Amino acid sequence: MDKRYPDTYYSDYLQLGRLLECQQRKSESYGSPAHDEMLFIIVHQAYELWFKQILFEIDSVREIFGGDSVEEKRIGLAVARLLRVTEIQKILIDQLRVLETMTPLDFLDFRDFLFPASGFQSVQFRMIEIKLGLLSARRLKYDEAPYHSRLSGEHRERLFDLESETSLFDLVERWLERMPFLEEEGFRFRERYGGAVVRMLEGDRDLIRTHSTLSAREKELQLEELDRTLASFESLLDPDRHGSLQEKGRWRLSHRATLAALFITAYRDEPLLHMPYRLLDCLVDVDELFTTWRYRHALMVHRMIGAKIGTGGSSGYHYLKSTAETHRIFSDLTNLSTYLLPRAALPRLPDELLKKLAFVYRP
Amino acid sequence: MDKRYPDTYYSDYLQLGRLLECQQRKSESYGSPAHDEMLFIIVHQAYELWFKQILFEIDSVREIFGGDSVEEKRIGLAVARLLRVTEIQKILIDQLRVLETMTPLDFLDFRDFLFPASGFQSVQFRMIEIKLGLLSARRLKYDEAPYHSRLSGEHRERLFDLESETSLFDLVERWLERMPFLEEEGFRFRERYGGAVVRMLEGDRDLIRTHSTLSAREKELQLEELDRTLASFESLLDPDRHGSLQEKGRWRLSHRATLAALFITAYRDEPLLHMPYRLLDCLVDVDELFTTWRYRHALMVHRMIGAKIGTGGSSGYHYLKSTAETHRIFSDLTNLSTYLLPRAALPRLPDELLKKLAFVYRP
Amino acid sequence: MDKRYPDTYYSDYLQLGRLLECQQRKSESYGSPAHDEMLFIIVHQAYELWFKQILFEIDSVREIFGGDSVEEKRIGLAVARLLRVTEIQKILIDQLRVLETMTPLDFLDFRDFLFPASGFQSVQFRMIEIKLGLLSARRLKYDEAPYHSRLSGEHRERLFDLESETSLFDLVERWLERMPFLEEEGFRFRERYGGAVVRMLEGDRDLIRTHSTLSAREKELQLEELDRTLASFESLLDPDRHGSLQEKGRWRLSHRATLAALFITAYRDEPLLHMPYRLLDCLVDVDELFTTWRYRHALMVHRMIGAKIGTGGSSGYHYLKSTAETHRIFSDLTNLSTYLLPRAALPRLPDELLKKLAFVYRP
Amino acid sequence: MDKRYPDTYYSDYLQLGRLLECQQRKSESYGSPAHDEMLFIIVHQAYELWFKQILFEIDSVREIFGGDSVEEKRIGLAVARLLRVTEIQKILIDQLRVLETMTPLDFLDFRDFLFPASGFQSVQFRMIEIKLGLLSARRLKYDEAPYHSRLSGEHRERLFDLESETSLFDLVERWLERMPFLEEEGFRFRERYGGAVVRMLEGDRDLIRTHSTLSAREKELQLEELDRTLASFESLLDPDRHGSLQEKGRWRLSHRATLAALFITAYRDEPLLHMPYRLLDCLVDVDELFTTWRYRHALMVHRMIGAKIGTGGSSGYHYLKSTAETHRIFSDLTNLSTYLLPRAALPRLPDELLKKLAFVYRP
Repeated sequence: MDKRYPDTYYSDYLQLGRLLECQQRKSESYGSPAHDEMLFIIVHQAYELWFKQILFEIDSVREIFGGDSVEEKRIGLAVARLLRVTEIQKILIDQLRVLETMTPLDFLDFRDFLFPASGFQSVQFRMIEIKLGLLSARRLKYDEAPYHSRLSGEHRERLFDLESETSLFDLVERWLERMPFLEEEGFRFRERYGGAVVRMLEGDRDLIRTHSTLSAREKELQLEELDRTLASFESLLDPDRHGSLQEKGRWRLSHRATLAALFITAYRDEPLLHMPYRLLDCLVDVDELFTTWRYRHALMVHRMIGAKIGTGGSSGYHYLKSTAETHRIFSDLTNLSTYLLPRAALPRLPDELLKKLAFVYRP
Repeated sequence: MDKRYPDTYYSDYLQLGRLLECQQRKSESYGSPAHDEMLFIIVHQAYELWFKQILFEIDSVREIFGGDSVEEKRIGLAVARLLRVTEIQKILIDQLRVLETMTPLDFLDFRDFLFPASGFQSVQFRMIEIKLGLLSARRLKYDEAPYHSRLSGEHRERLFDLESETSLFDLVERWLERMPFLEEEGFRFRERYGGAVVRMLEGDRDLIRTHSTLSAREKELQLEELDRTLASFESLLDPDRHGSLQEKGRWRLSHRATLAALFITAYRDEPLLHMPYRLLDCLVDVDELFTTWRYRHALMVHRMIGAKIGTGGSSGYHYLKSTAETHRIFSDLTNLSTYLLPRAALPRLPDELLKKLAFVYRP
Repeated sequence: MDKRYPDTYYSDYLQLGRLLECQQRKSESYGSPAHDEMLFIIVHQAYELWFKQILFEIDSVREIFGGDSVEEKRIGLAVARLLRVTEIQKILIDQLRVLETMTPLDFLDFRDFLFPASGFQSVQFRMIEIKLGLLSARRLKYDEAPYHSRLSGEHRERLFDLESETSLFDLVERWLERMPFLEEEGFRFRERYGGAVVRMLEGDRDLIRTHSTLSAREKELQLEELDRTLASFESLLDPDRHGSLQEKGRWRLSHRATLAALFITAYRDEPLLHMPYRLLDCLVDVDELFTTWRYRHALMVHRMIGAKIGTGGSSGYHYLKSTAETHRIFSDLTNLSTYLLPRAALPRLPDELLKKLAFVYRP
Repeated sequence: MDKRYPDTYYSDYLQLGRLLECQQRKSESYGSPAHDEMLFIIVHQAYELWFKQILFEIDSVREIFGGDSVEEKRIGLAVARLLRVTEIQKILIDQLRVLETMTPLDFLDFRDFLFPASGFQSVQFRMIEIKLGLLSARRLKYDEAPYHSRLSGEHRERLFDLESETSLFDLVERWLERMPFLEEEGFRFRERYGGAVVRMLEGDRDLIRTHSTLSAREKELQLEELDRTLASFESLLDPDRHGSLQEKGRWRLSHRATLAALFITAYRDEPLLHMPYRLLDCLVDVDELFTTWRYRHALMVHRMIGAKIGTGGSSGYHYLKSTAETHRIFSDLTNLSTYLLPRAALPRLPDELLKKLAFVYRP
């Protein structure tokens, strides 16, 4: 290492001169400074910094999955970066507690100055959603208007452009679809799994029927539930049924990708599948943490402004709360739990396949 | 201090001998030990310990508010104990992360052994809800059955008995109703506040009408919203309108108590109202944290068992998620934010009243 | 409310255009982009944003305590703002977990580019310490150099100027010194408290002497400890002994202020003392959380760079760890616990004094 | 699945009848009930429940590493269980916030009844330390007495027995020692790494010498530091120097194991090393979190009882604080960061070796 680099000074490196000049209170410029507006600004800026970091990580994961094939060793890298995203998301959630140190009465001191600005206008958050894979068509409308109606033309353009890019959802789906192993010589995963399912559910049926403390009505309800479960399994395993539910929006992942995800989840103990499993688990985590964040955010808004019109005229927290779940992206992966069999009931993999899923080195 | 007490030994004091023998894995007794069942047991036991502590604190707060009048200095004590409850609730929420280190596949290793046990059967959690003030009639039904249908006769009895006791909600309501200050010589809080509201909303109306960037449709929507807001204010301030909404379940607190809570919130800077305000704020916190906990709990259940029948045959996380908000108790207090006026618009209190709200000592 | 304000747009209001351009990776400008440098920058920028907010709150608290007297009702405001500081501090601590998603190997990808920049150069953090009350003379030296040796001339000036201002420590000390109540007619707090202490400690002495399971050696050690405790109490209550220890740096608060803090802590249940007690408690919290943050920060540095020279050539985490405790500011308040008596042993306050500490209003 | 299992009832399954009877307040049995003693008991019981779970996980990890060889696929399982331990540890730390809702004055209401019980008497925590690998000889003495001096004979026996078992530290050390790859045909890791180190440090030396803003004195200090670094590297890489430092207690891991850990850390991107790296990282996490917990615990004790004799006559928080770092177990792993080279400077592995570290399957 030779020394080609000039000295670095902390404050210059972080551009603190500019960064710490970006906090201008409206209330101050209008001559009635409201103390808590500073907090309001800084909390939101901290959010936007973290959003930038999350975008940076998502982009890098999209790049990893962007090629025609993914080098196995790079999946660990993708996992590490998604784990980082989840650690940031925990901060996003905890930051709400800081904002909640502002009381509704204190917020009123400057709320009118912000009109009609609103957190709905965070372009970066919309970019995160789009890059993860939220489809415009799946977004809830707000006041009958599309999600981008409050944005400037420039920002709207940027989001439209982004919507035509390939999302992380798409890339993961393709990667799953490419996965071999589902159809090996003498092994058809789908058929084998389906057989095991039927055996298990028939056991459950007996369990309910012969149950001593359930009332007749309860049994009836549970057997109906079981039938729905069986139908649901079929809708997962049968390509046609899956396809028709996919058209209705009940499933989003392709049939092939869903089966691959199920395979990974069920046989995750095999070395080659370990990181892929952790990847899927991380995606569920990311989804769950954003869901939690949206929900907590909605509760905070409820507390802060009640049901009155929001800073941007929004009809309030009901919309936010509805998006918590609706804007989930990887719920197909979460729903896979429904279709898991206990290890003891899982079809055994052929030795040839097991070998493929192992390391070259054997002690 | 003289020495009447025999020596205390840590392990005896905490009864660790018994405490640490209460973890018996079903899977072990059935001969197929599942590693993760230990975690499952211990997490739930930790929950129950904390529930006991929360009950203990709620009971002490109920006792403070139980008499004919509450000594002002004891309100600080009630606040301290509710703050403790909120710190415990944060642990309840964080503990879900520990449980989520168990994967769905690992849960399947012992899930069948637990049938039909379910977290719905936590008597202590039901007791917390009842003591806080959740009314039986407001509970969501589950599988068309009342919330106590899965409980033993003895446990059901205990809950029924509890439902006839006076809840914290009731006690706080009475305390609020007793509050003087709303009608002092030459000062009628309700009328003065109502006048200020009308002035403010008319201002908002102009704001919307003359707004330059809102479309006609948006203006229309916002003006409709404003009318709803005005009507809502009237329903708060007018005893008859409040009463009829109360009958429909839209408000729960009595009119008198609601006005007192509004008064406290608006004039919380006066010394005498400081602790009462913090008390109301703590109740909102307790409510919000249980709401968050229920929601996060629902997400965890979704992740763990999908939409299949739960350990107790429950149709799953949808029910849990619905209770998150529905089982809130102090939402009237949260909704008060809707009706707050900015400090500048608040009616000024008469000097005589201000003096009453101060300390004897003046520097 | 009339409408004098132009529309506000979220992104302009938060100056996101500038804010999100402040992240320039050195590694990128040198042609070998290191992915994790973005995280490094953003985490530190988030820290600096929060530091700005903390400074803003500390300044407002200093203003509240800045006059010749403090209106009682404004102490609640000071408490609320310090509580906000503590919520921010929790975020500061949690953010370390995000930084720790960067591994030592990843840090090496860009570490050389930063030389000799270092977190020691955070001017805002030094400002926080100074405004809270950290004395230059109490700072640990680093590599034999004063804490400001790595700073630019301009930054050094700013800190020197600040050191001549009145710190929060000074202001709180003066406020405590002004507190009446310690010497009322027929009541001398110091004497009464001293008498109660002697009674209690003699009780402890008997307790140890007659103890059945302690060995002779253990008893000896504990009695020595008790004598030290008694001496320590005297050094608190006796102005001369306190003064001489103060000269040695063992106490920092003046004798008068210390007694006032003890009075507040012991009789905090009285209404007038409730907020003052919470203020002292908050100051201990702020201190403890910075101590924790410094310590956790030191652990993170240890993990990241081991004992090798730091980015700024620092000899590493040992220095950081030493500052954790040494740079505490309000340790006199923490140490007060040592001198508390159980409620039952506390001298009873005269009725006249009790009345002064109450509200005007009596139900 | 057939139905051989009787119905399970939540409350019986968790043995709540017994569990919730284990909270008996001393203050109540002595006729002067102290409200906060309930919290004190329940917090400590929650700690002990979690300690039991941590022991359960550590035992399972010890079992995984207990045989003559460790199946590669089981390392992922060990990692998952250690990750669970870290999630629990975060709860342990956060629980301190709950305990801190008890003020020093409130603690005094029942503190005397507990004499001489003390958290030092937690047998389970000592067991955790021993099972992880804390050597009795490395423990700090307390009041000149060994750590077990306050324990009952039975408990002391249990710990002595445990000390003769093989700790997780020992097992991991053996596993590292068994690792092949350090000496392959045509590749000697130690020599290659040493060469790279020398090249890098000579670069650093030039960097310092030619540095423009450092003073002569600073340069001198940094060059001395560099020499120490070089010597330190030699003490890592040279078996004799390592051995003599090991005798002095500076290193604990064997030379062979240390080199293996360095190899894993440096080449962790290779598939076979991914999980081993995460295992080492988890051990550092576990260590760091216990260090943090001990430190935070010490701060809490300081706040609660000051410097006076503790409940068990302990001379207080100084001892606790000292153990925070001293009782670390895997600090050799943390210190490895010191000896890492940037990826660009790392010796390239031979293709043959790279192939061994990959999966059988290649897309």
